[in-house]
Amino acid sequence: MPKQVVIIGAVALGPKVACRLKRLDPEAEITLVDRDDLISYGGCGIPYYLGGDINDLEDLYSTSAHIRRDQYFFKHCKGVKVRTQVEATSINRAEKTITINDLNSTQEEQLQYDKLVLATGATPMRPPFPGSDLENVFLLKSLHEAEQIKTLMTKGKVGRAVVVGGGAIGLEICEAMTDLWGIETHLIEMEDQVLPTLLGKCIARAVKTHLEEKGVRVMVDDRVSRIFTDAKTGTTVVETAKTSIPTDIVILATGVRPNTELAKEAGLAIGNSGGILVDRRMRTSDPNIYAGGDCVELRNLISGENMLMALGSLANRQGRIIATNINGGSSHFDGTVGTFCIKVFDLGVAKAGLTFRQAKETGFDPVYAVISQADHAHFYPQSELLYISLIAERKTRKILGIEAAGKHGDAVKARVDAVAVLLKHGVTVDDICNMEAGYAPPYASAMDAVNNVGNTLDNILAGLNSPVDVYDFIEHFQRGTPKVLDTRATKEASPFINKYGSRWLNIPQDQLRHRLQEIPKDELLYLICDTGPRSYEAQVLLASVGITKTRNIQGGFAMVKMTDPHFI
Amino acid sequence: MPKQVVIIGAVALGPKVACRLKRLDPEAEITLVDRDDLISYGGCGIPYYLGGDINDLEDLYSTSAHIRRDQYFFKHCKGVKVRTQVEATSINRAEKTITINDLNSTQEEQLQYDKLVLATGATPMRPPFPGSDLENVFLLKSLHEAEQIKTLMTKGKVGRAVVVGGGAIGLEICEAMTDLWGIETHLIEMEDQVLPTLLGKCIARAVKTHLEEKGVRVMVDDRVSRIFTDAKTGTTVVETAKTSIPTDIVILATGVRPNTELAKEAGLAIGNSGGILVDRRMRTSDPNIYAGGDCVELRNLISGENMLMALGSLANRQGRIIATNINGGSSHFDGTVGTFCIKVFDLGVAKAGLTFRQAKETGFDPVYAVISQADHAHFYPQSELLYISLIAERKTRKILGIEAAGKHGDAVKARVDAVAVLLKHGVTVDDICNMEAGYAPPYASAMDAVNNVGNTLDNILAGLNSPVDVYDFIEHFQRGTPKVLDTRATKEASPFINKYGSRWLNIPQDQLRHRLQEIPKDELLYLICDTGPRSYEAQVLLASVGITKTRNIQGGFAMVKMTDPHFI
Repeated sequence: MPKQVVIIGAVALGPKVACRLKRLDPEAEITLVDRDDLISYGGCGIPYYLGGDINDLEDLYSTSAHIRRDQYFFKHCKGVKVRTQVEATSINRAEKTITINDLNSTQEEQLQYDKLVLATGATPMRPPFPGSDLENVFLLKSLHEAEQIKTLMTKGKVGRAVVVGGGAIGLEICEAMTDLWGIETHLIEMEDQVLPTLLGKCIARAVKTHLEEKGVRVMVDDRVSRIFTDAKTGTTVVETAKTSIPTDIVILATGVRPNTELAKEAGLAIGNSGGILVDRRMRTSDPNIYAGGDCVELRNLISGENMLMALGSLANRQGRIIATNINGGSSHFDGTVGTFCIKVFDLGVAKAGLTFRQAKETGFDPVYAVISQADHAHFYPQSELLYISLIAERKTRKILGIEAAGKHGDAVKARVDAVAVLLKHGVTVDDICNMEAGYAPPYASAMDAVNNVGNTLDNILAGLNSPVDVYDFIEHFQRGTPKVLDTRATKEASPFINKYGSRWLNIPQDQLRHRLQEIPKDELLYLICDTGPRSYEAQVLLASVGITKTRNIQGGFAMVKMTDPHFI
Repeated sequence: MPKQVVIIGAVALGPKVACRLKRLDPEAEITLVDRDDLISYGGCGIPYYLGGDINDLEDLYSTSAHIRRDQYFFKHCKGVKVRTQVEATSINRAEKTITINDLNSTQEEQLQYDKLVLATGATPMRPPFPGSDLENVFLLKSLHEAEQIKTLMTKGKVGRAVVVGGGAIGLEICEAMTDLWGIETHLIEMEDQVLPTLLGKCIARAVKTHLEEKGVRVMVDDRVSRIFTDAKTGTTVVETAKTSIPTDIVILATGVRPNTELAKEAGLAIGNSGGILVDRRMRTSDPNIYAGGDCVELRNLISGENMLMALGSLANRQGRIIATNINGGSSHFDGTVGTFCIKVFDLGVAKAGLTFRQAKETGFDPVYAVISQADHAHFYPQSELLYISLIAERKTRKILGIEAAGKHGDAVKARVDAVAVLLKHGVTVDDICNMEAGYAPPYASAMDAVNNVGNTLDNILAGLNSPVDVYDFIEHFQRGTPKVLDTRATKEASPFINKYGSRWLNIPQDQLRHRLQEIPKDELLYLICDTGPRSYEAQVLLASVGITKTRNIQGGFAMVKMTDPHFI
């Protein structure tokens, strides 16, 4: 008898398991069941559908050859049976059956399986504050909800929006609302920065600045207390700890929770992060039941701890592994280093590994460098600045994470991906200094930005470079006393000299060796130039004559502008 | 007494050693000597200067803050002495001196060193055929020569050009000539493909097609027999084995030779590839003499053999290592996996590791896959196709190389760099299937192209995918007998059905399961679709019913178009 495989969930991982397995074992009888009528879609495309980059919702569930991935497609092209609008309600592990409930007829039925795959995904969390279930408050649970929102926007019913949650989806939604539709958009994030689980403070500040420049009103360090309808005006109001915002629509993007009810009720092991536990072959605690995608937890290969990571790319790769293993092969998913990228308006942002804060919480003694450098050879016309932060463990020099942003998103991705794939090999700062990335002037500098962030971290660890973060500098400088030594040309420095007088020393690099006597020896001095190299060189020179109370502003003036465009 | 360090050569590695060492040891007395008057320049920028992307030659020897890197700069900004137009003529290792010759005064002088660094670079080879030294034949030896050529072009004296050598520089020069100046340009390469040491046949064919589409007349498998001046017309003529080409200018780009005369005469060890031998600390056979950059040979970390690799990025990283080591540190350069990238008109091209041919020559039993896939999510508007080839050793599944091309150059670089940095860690096909690159629809597919080329190679190794290269298919098909099964929609297939009749079967994917009886069982059948997935699926389906004489066309119709745009 052919092998019976039942897969619960038909969005990303489920269809991947089904199609791959059918190719490996054309005899297998594979059934996909899903609650929804739309299946096999790219949920991560929703913000681009809302923002108008994608006109037709159908594009999100069509192949690259524009063939709609529906029941007909799976049956005739893939040889896989799909049952939509059917809910799996329980698993009987002893008898190897699941019970399903037809959502239209409410008829119950049993399906027999030899192998079962749980691809139940995750559901956006509805936060506990009052009003989170009002009519014009959306969770973005499904394509249908996306369609509803787009209809509202198309009909001109949305002039104002509030997005709650400054994670990846929240930011993508902000862009969708603001960019095409010109909707006045507020973003509310309870942590003190955007993308708090993804980025450290420096790059996150750059992202926030960019959001603000694009018109998004970003409110960090604030939280929603309730959403209510103003009795007089009928307007929806989002009330936070600090203010009240009238709005036409609210999008809640406060994270997702893995759908594990079925697994739990069937007695499968659940991990500490709340996801289904699987081994490296993606098997649950029952060897006949596999699970993958957003409903499982994964080993973080840097921290060693399990974590949730809802990402379509992980789901797809896990799906292939599950199919191989169901067919008797042996394929492994070791875990994740949390590689991630996102487009925020004109800025590409990417990261892998741990943020500084996460590294500390995990028990490392982390140290990091931040640089600004052109992504392409500086003499090549289309270059844009990259802002990169590299994090390592102080004692072992082992790389713990990397974060970057820049206007050429693919160039940002190139730097981060190259470090990301090395993370699980336990590489050190020295490996990044010598990393062999491709070089040609239209695509890189001879000393690539990613090598240079390694070099900078090497210099920090060697005590040659004594850095300060831009936001710490700005805060400290604006509070009063400390001085700046600006090693740029006088033309560039003069607006600052005019404003700050004797607090803003300007000695261009070529004069510094001859004017060392002008430098104050016993007070804190912040060193700045365009992007960092000249201020670093100044720091080394000053140290050689005993002037050591200096701090080199990481990323230079380029980073100041990304942090506070109004600084001067 | 402070340490005396003398560096011969002041282009890439020399200045890097000098500046870094001065920061590490501010007391050191460092002297850079160079034959030329222009120093510390980005030689790889020359094609972009010729092509007009860079207007001013000075940009190539200025910092990102537009400060000219000349003697004044090195003295005042860096504390390093530079002597230009001075030639080093010999090394006395016993007395630790070098003899230099002032090219203006022809006065000789001795310089004492504690440590000597050879950064003598490489010189373009003048090929042995007659006429290679005619007046309008250029080698691109220096910035001065670049300036001469640009002056000729600016004055309108160049309507026709012949570029000899289809390596990286040859291709960049072709673009520079054709793109801005509209010069009728011939490219002559003696191997049967462009970029013969960098790419396998598939990607190289795509590059050749692109060059031709941009107007370059590419002549592979041909070689120059002589260059002469036609006595009657005064015209320069390039005579090859196959034809004669009248031209206004000839650029010879037939490779470079490391400058090792000084080292040889001083009795330093020279390797089999003709470069100076250095250890992992970049020391020559004399521990007081370091060498790096284009004049040394490097370990190829895949083949284990030494090779020459003239690249500014390697020189810069080696320079940092040499400085660290001269200062008493311990930093290593392990070798190279030959990571490379190049812009060819609108196409970004990158590679790392060995080509299929090199892998065979090295003694591996290589196998490879080729795919075409969108670089970004296919539903995201700005996606472009990536063409990727992945090469592995059959038995061990160890990755030996990767090559890629596509219109988003940074996206090409992202894929190749991520695999490149893994090569020295001895990763296998499975590691590429599961490689964790960043995913977001504007930058990648959920199953990234780089994962998919791994998956395809995995399927080939498992015997599920039985591939044929596009150019083999085209050649075989055009010679006569074999048939094609086209699984695309009939609309797309109809021009082919009209032309090839019964040799071009069309069964759209959704009908194939029901029309298996129409498939010829005992004759070779080439399977095609847009980019490859549907033809692969068809191959698996046909195999399951015993039809196994099929070959899946790698990269599908997208690759056919890149190989032969006139195929139909």
